[in-house]
Amino acid sequence: MNELDIIKIISKNLSYSNGVEKGIGDDCAVFKFENQHLVVTTDMMFKSTHFPSILTPFQIGMRVVTANVSDIAAMCAKPLGMVISMGFDNPKKTFIDEMSKGINFISKEYGCPIAGGDTNKAPELTLSGTAFGITDNPIYRGGIIGEDICITGDVGKVNCALKLLEMKDKGILGNIEFEKTMSEFPRIMKKLAEPKARVKEGLLLNKIITSCCDISDGLSKDLNYTGNFEINSKNLLNSVSREVIEFCEKFDMDLLKTVLNSGEEFELLFTTPDFKKAEEKLKDINSVTKIGKVVESGKTVDGISVELEGYVHKW
Amino acid sequence: MNELDIIKIISKNLSYSNGVEKGIGDDCAVFKFENQHLVVTTDMMFKSTHFPSILTPFQIGMRVVTANVSDIAAMCAKPLGMVISMGFDNPKKTFIDEMSKGINFISKEYGCPIAGGDTNKAPELTLSGTAFGITDNPIYRGGIIGEDICITGDVGKVNCALKLLEMKDKGILGNIEFEKTMSEFPRIMKKLAEPKARVKEGLLLNKIITSCCDISDGLSKDLNYTGNFEINSKNLLNSVSREVIEFCEKFDMDLLKTVLNSGEEFELLFTTPDFKKAEEKLKDINSVTKIGKVVESGKTVDGISVELEGYVHKW
Repeated sequence: MNELDIIKIISKNLSYSNGVEKGIGDDCAVFKFENQHLVVTTDMMFKSTHFPSILTPFQIGMRVVTANVSDIAAMCAKPLGMVISMGFDNPKKTFIDEMSKGINFISKEYGCPIAGGDTNKAPELTLSGTAFGITDNPIYRGGIIGEDICITGDVGKVNCALKLLEMKDKGILGNIEFEKTMSEFPRIMKKLAEPKARVKEGLLLNKIITSCCDISDGLSKDLNYTGNFEINSKNLLNSVSREVIEFCEKFDMDLLKTVLNSGEEFELLFTTPDFKKAEEKLKDINSVTKIGKVVESGKTVDGISVELEGYVHKW
Repeated sequence: MNELDIIKIISKNLSYSNGVEKGIGDDCAVFKFENQHLVVTTDMMFKSTHFPSILTPFQIGMRVVTANVSDIAAMCAKPLGMVISMGFDNPKKTFIDEMSKGINFISKEYGCPIAGGDTNKAPELTLSGTAFGITDNPIYRGGIIGEDICITGDVGKVNCALKLLEMKDKGILGNIEFEKTMSEFPRIMKKLAEPKARVKEGLLLNKIITSCCDISDGLSKDLNYTGNFEINSKNLLNSVSREVIEFCEKFDMDLLKTVLNSGEEFELLFTTPDFKKAEEKLKDINSVTKIGKVVESGKTVDGISVELEGYVHKW
């Protein structure tokens, strides 16, 4: 049984949907609200499955906010606020203090105040956030044939950082080598530890793009939301940072696969009829790369079919 | 360390509150939006701490919805929708099917559609709901001196049901006696297994009451939200159901204490300058009992000081 099986059973049973504009199946649920749309998302995290060991309590706090707000950004909506439920197995004052400082710091950066929550006893640290936002024009997943497929920023760092942690955990890298590699590739671990939700980007792009999602499961999985696609690897790799290229060379990793399967990047993946305008809009805050096109049939990179990958919970 | 210590640390750190009308410290967080108020609440539940063993999967589904929607009812707001994050340790098709049917059944009854969620691996069954509602007049906790303190329906059954389960678990009652007692007091276990959120009551009371909360931690704790109070036990016990009275007699339990410390009843506790009107408004759907008055000083039942009780998570 995997999470897709579970979602199938649940979706079938949740037939009551009075007043819901968009239910299960996008970055956010959407409700009509006065003359606006209320967009809502929820993301639950458990210590053992969601938080890399390298994260500080402050960064754990940042992450639960970022993961939720990123879905608001993916609807190109303005954050309104958030609530966070917390479960603790063994709460320590310093941990809670640092974590809540991280939550507050990043919520301010996003303009998304934390307005409430719930605290509980739990078998392990459990954080469940729900963020909501407002927009007059929610941007859904999708894609129109012929449009350009674009991403903000660059992807790949998170996958490299996870590889680095794995090499340490498996003893392939000793502590000294690990630390040395960390300082050689500082931006890689930083992106894993402190990814950012692209709120400003989403708001600026709202009126000039036709579909959007955040890159949370990895491009190769998230690209499926655009329908069929042709990706040009040269264009995609042009956006990749030097650190990722050098890291892949150093550790003999396939660069394209590393980039395609890098999850929790929280950059925006969108389609637009006007790439130039998107690039112009974001010129002061982030890069935009045209990585391919929405096409009538086939899901290809340089003409070769790609498989759905990315992370799916399994039991 | 208990949850009040945790909430204190977190509340101090969450200083960013731009646009929040009401943050931590009421049944719901409140945001001003256009000419309305969006009310939001979140409630996280773990199998080992929140779900009595007697609950069926269908009833577990109902409960996570009811616990959240009850906070919307306590603001006298109209439910708009809800999202539910779920963590499973060992997901079984039949369990998920039944649970989601329970969720759908009750969400329809409350007019509160489930519009999204998140599924995860977890150390034990974990359900975290966030419900939203709308109102032009959110009713907060509080109370004005001289006003009547009232409750909808009756309380006490949940405490009796928990006592019955405890007697079974401790072997004080054998299986046959347990089943016999269950059938002798059918409404007691029903209230534990299938409590209802008082959505209709909240909406009808909105313009004629000045404060409201739901009875979730037990009257003796929840009464503190009204400020100072004088409770008249005779009036309170007049509202108690015959089953609770007989159960307490049979098992030699203090009736008043049982009633005062019965949590998760989800009835509304409110203050009003016009008890008669409140009673009249609810006459077709629920009883209303005047149990006391908001006073200038002291927290008393029949003139005797009462201590804060009710459930607080401790580690």
